[in-house]
Amino acid sequence: MHRTHTCGELSADHIWQTVTLAGWVANRRDHGGVIFIDLRDRYGLTQTVFDPKDGEEAWNVADTFRSEYVVKLTGVVRARPDGQSNPNLSTGHIEVVIIAAEILTRSETPPFEISDHTDTKEDLRFRYRYLDLRRTKTLSNVQFRAKMNHFTRNWFSAHDFLEVQTPIFTVSSPEGARDYLIPSRIHHGKFYALPQAPQQYKQLLMVGGVDKYFQIAPCFRDEDPRADRHSCEFYQIDCEMSFVEQDDVFRVVESFIRDLVPSIVPSKSITADSFIRIPYTEAIDRYGTDKPDIRFGLRFEDFTDDFRSSDFSVFRGAVDTGGVVKAMKLEGKSMSRSQIDDLTKVAQDAGAKGLAYIIYEAEGPRSPILKFFSDAEMEALETKLSPKAGDMIFFGAGEHAGVCKVLGVVRNTLRDWFDLADKKHLAFAWITDFPFYEEGDDGRLDFCHNPFSMPLGGMDALMNQNPLTIHAQQYDLACNGYEILSGSIRNHDVDVMVKAFSMVGKDENTVRERFGAMYQAFRYGPPPHGGFAIGFDRFMMILCDEPNIREIYAFPKSGKAEDVMMNAPATVDDMQLAELGIDLTREARENLRS
Amino acid sequence: MHRTHTCGELSADHIWQTVTLAGWVANRRDHGGVIFIDLRDRYGLTQTVFDPKDGEEAWNVADTFRSEYVVKLTGVVRARPDGQSNPNLSTGHIEVVIIAAEILTRSETPPFEISDHTDTKEDLRFRYRYLDLRRTKTLSNVQFRAKMNHFTRNWFSAHDFLEVQTPIFTVSSPEGARDYLIPSRIHHGKFYALPQAPQQYKQLLMVGGVDKYFQIAPCFRDEDPRADRHSCEFYQIDCEMSFVEQDDVFRVVESFIRDLVPSIVPSKSITADSFIRIPYTEAIDRYGTDKPDIRFGLRFEDFTDDFRSSDFSVFRGAVDTGGVVKAMKLEGKSMSRSQIDDLTKVAQDAGAKGLAYIIYEAEGPRSPILKFFSDAEMEALETKLSPKAGDMIFFGAGEHAGVCKVLGVVRNTLRDWFDLADKKHLAFAWITDFPFYEEGDDGRLDFCHNPFSMPLGGMDALMNQNPLTIHAQQYDLACNGYEILSGSIRNHDVDVMVKAFSMVGKDENTVRERFGAMYQAFRYGPPPHGGFAIGFDRFMMILCDEPNIREIYAFPKSGKAEDVMMNAPATVDDMQLAELGIDLTREARENLRS
Repeated sequence: MHRTHTCGELSADHIWQTVTLAGWVANRRDHGGVIFIDLRDRYGLTQTVFDPKDGEEAWNVADTFRSEYVVKLTGVVRARPDGQSNPNLSTGHIEVVIIAAEILTRSETPPFEISDHTDTKEDLRFRYRYLDLRRTKTLSNVQFRAKMNHFTRNWFSAHDFLEVQTPIFTVSSPEGARDYLIPSRIHHGKFYALPQAPQQYKQLLMVGGVDKYFQIAPCFRDEDPRADRHSCEFYQIDCEMSFVEQDDVFRVVESFIRDLVPSIVPSKSITADSFIRIPYTEAIDRYGTDKPDIRFGLRFEDFTDDFRSSDFSVFRGAVDTGGVVKAMKLEGKSMSRSQIDDLTKVAQDAGAKGLAYIIYEAEGPRSPILKFFSDAEMEALETKLSPKAGDMIFFGAGEHAGVCKVLGVVRNTLRDWFDLADKKHLAFAWITDFPFYEEGDDGRLDFCHNPFSMPLGGMDALMNQNPLTIHAQQYDLACNGYEILSGSIRNHDVDVMVKAFSMVGKDENTVRERFGAMYQAFRYGPPPHGGFAIGFDRFMMILCDEPNIREIYAFPKSGKAEDVMMNAPATVDDMQLAELGIDLTREARENLRS
Repeated sequence: MHRTHTCGELSADHIWQTVTLAGWVANRRDHGGVIFIDLRDRYGLTQTVFDPKDGEEAWNVADTFRSEYVVKLTGVVRARPDGQSNPNLSTGHIEVVIIAAEILTRSETPPFEISDHTDTKEDLRFRYRYLDLRRTKTLSNVQFRAKMNHFTRNWFSAHDFLEVQTPIFTVSSPEGARDYLIPSRIHHGKFYALPQAPQQYKQLLMVGGVDKYFQIAPCFRDEDPRADRHSCEFYQIDCEMSFVEQDDVFRVVESFIRDLVPSIVPSKSITADSFIRIPYTEAIDRYGTDKPDIRFGLRFEDFTDDFRSSDFSVFRGAVDTGGVVKAMKLEGKSMSRSQIDDLTKVAQDAGAKGLAYIIYEAEGPRSPILKFFSDAEMEALETKLSPKAGDMIFFGAGEHAGVCKVLGVVRNTLRDWFDLADKKHLAFAWITDFPFYEEGDDGRLDFCHNPFSMPLGGMDALMNQNPLTIHAQQYDLACNGYEILSGSIRNHDVDVMVKAFSMVGKDENTVRERFGAMYQAFRYGPPPHGGFAIGFDRFMMILCDEPNIREIYAFPKSGKAEDVMMNAPATVDDMQLAELGIDLTREARENLRS
């Protein structure tokens, strides 16, 4: 071992001990002929002192040190002189007087400064990720992920969930996103696919009697990169249970999160109203989204009836054509003319024609549209929103879905502009009662979410109910405006499954072909079961206050799905391709040449 | 929840409680009008009793139960009548008198009996793995893997190793086995590769200052299937440390294994001589393999000098042509003529011309070759092997490598035939001092193992030593005749790396191209580092006494690298291929048609 201690562990307890440290030269200061070197490793920073009186040879070696050299230093621990302690550092009360120094390896000048204050571009940091990792911020994300992995696995294991690693090489499924494909060398012309999620496998585990399963599962979707979606691979906390109903699943999730948060992010608190259940239609109606941020109010109130015969033609017109009028109150915030213009722009980008508003001032309400409002209309606002001086009201009018969407976007914008949501708070909301089916633009029925969930009411509902009114036993969990979990009680009945597919125009053969294993398995005594998957990476983003999902990977892919450090993806030999029974298309060859 | 208790938790403590169980019908017995159903779930088996006197309706329902139906039963726990307890079952002292019964799902007759005594063919079990998982043996392997994962991660975390998940999408590396490739949809003509091991990433983590890293890493090699090698994916306990020397690495591994074994396989014991270090050449010389099973003796002794001028022309001829004569003693086992013939066949299959032997009987030694042996030769045998009546000696003569190999194979065969190795024992041996280079058939130098390890003596050795005598700072750990670990102290010096490659005819450009990230990274203060990878699956095979590696996966690939349950690999749409910029070769298309 090239050291006796790490750079983070020496304290007053070690005074007068002779120690050997190894690490990186983080910092050099010269003071009256004495050299001070801050030595850094993963565990901390230790101040070392080179005084020619204590060791001339060591001083000479230290004099050649440059930033990021790796050095091995032997010396004696002593207390720092009075007034020179650094209480921000665990080693801040001591320093080590060096008597022997050795350079283990040298470093060229790094392409960016190894410091948390660097604003180096992402591309450069990713290219030299091994240097970026020496920065506390990057390392701490990696450490946080390890901690969250660790806590999660131990929690589920302690609660009798069996960890099962499902296959990474599986078969392409035509539902959902695009699959990544792997040509088979042994079976030319055939391909493995990487799993988008272990959905079928975990359900088969239930058929197999595993009863309670979990896994931090690598998942793979060939989607276009986005700020909250990592290219190539991502991870989910994947979970499935037998003999459960929705409440049982909720209990597990809530209990996990209530244990997780104080353990790994004690600085955050779960709000008192967390885990309320909001039916899907209510979420849309009141927040304009199925992943509402409930850390703050600004809920929408409905004024459709109130403006049914309004003199304000925009509102009346909306109601006349079957639309709605909604409004929300921004409490105690005043906005400048140009802010209102900006916000109107936000609403327009989301699809609105404009953004009607009222400003409540000490002298009374003020707005260009006020002159059209009747007393009754003003009273309705009064009753439902109780505006006071200093508040504002924003309106949306038109077709229901569009109004909800626009107001939802405006709501989140106001949150960001006025810090309406406490960053220390985590607010979780269950979204329940999703519609099972939806109507496509062509008027044809399709599954609203996934076809694996059990329709509420089962076969009876499928036979006798208006399909658009059938609810799925499906649920999401929203946290601070993100969807972090999705799950359902599964449809484990082959007959119900076949019927459910038949209603979207897919016959039994299709079911057999697409979900062959499950279709077979469910003939042999499947238990009722349900589960969920938590988007590990996205949840971690929220817990870490990290707006860019790429930053939470040790070695991230770029925004173009590239590993710029390893230079992946890359060209391969024609021989490799021939061995796999594939060839590049002409277009691809031209693409390489250009 | 469809139950109040599992089928494994009821005991005398629950007597008189009303409980609801849910599970699979494992067994039915009828006894004087009373039906006994053993109900099974992951946790155990509970005997339930249907007496028409206690509940006629429940009895009627139970009368329709068939094997593997999933049922929900409510009843009252009572003690089993005197003399009817089953001490082998945790629930063996109670039974549940059922008052209400419900069929949750039905089952067709399974394609094989759900029992541990089934000898169903692998192919059928894999096709219906979800039924196979209901067998205790299959489930217990899955549970063992979870336990080993759990223990391993907690151990390394507790010892300050940071878990880092390295990318699954990386770049093809031309060294080692074949890579699995993934065509990039965004960058036509380019491919990702799945990592054969996170070798470069873990070394880059060391450059990044992570100091101590571990991961149970999925690894991917496109190799042909084998009994101790799973197709497609496998797992390794991957580990790397900075500022360490070989002894430090050994200490970590030994400490891990000494903690692991008693925790997860208390039935096995680590032999007293475990973790001895055997230099590579000695392993070959004395065991004929670099993964010796040291649970038993049968080590080879060298007799080359003793037979230099022997009258036995086979031995003398071997020595004359630069070869060796070796022998080993099988203690206290006698073999029949036909057994000796079989063993000779084994030796011949391994490349020997024949298998010379001496049988020591009460009347003295007996062998067809004895007449050629001088007194001095017999004395040499006496001195080095001390044979007694009831022992046998086997010889090998010829070229060194061949003799070692043949005797090694004979040695392991004798182990299997005579149970020489205690199955309860785990014997670990470090194999050290591997040669850094080897000479190919064409006389050209090549790396003996991997090019990442540091040659002992560094640059000086490369400059001034006969390359074939240079040792690598590389080590393996053998356990019971398997290689379960491989590792090395890495070469972290770009100059030494370039020099090492130049000696196998590869210039600096090649190094830069093949290991670009590492070549770059080592310019910025890499710490000295080393590590290892334990073959998780193979180690688990040994711990579980499972001869077939496929059995230790929840959802295994077949011997032809297929998932017969999911039907992977499979054909994909031409549109999917076009999107990826690839096409099938004509040969592959024909292969699909045939």
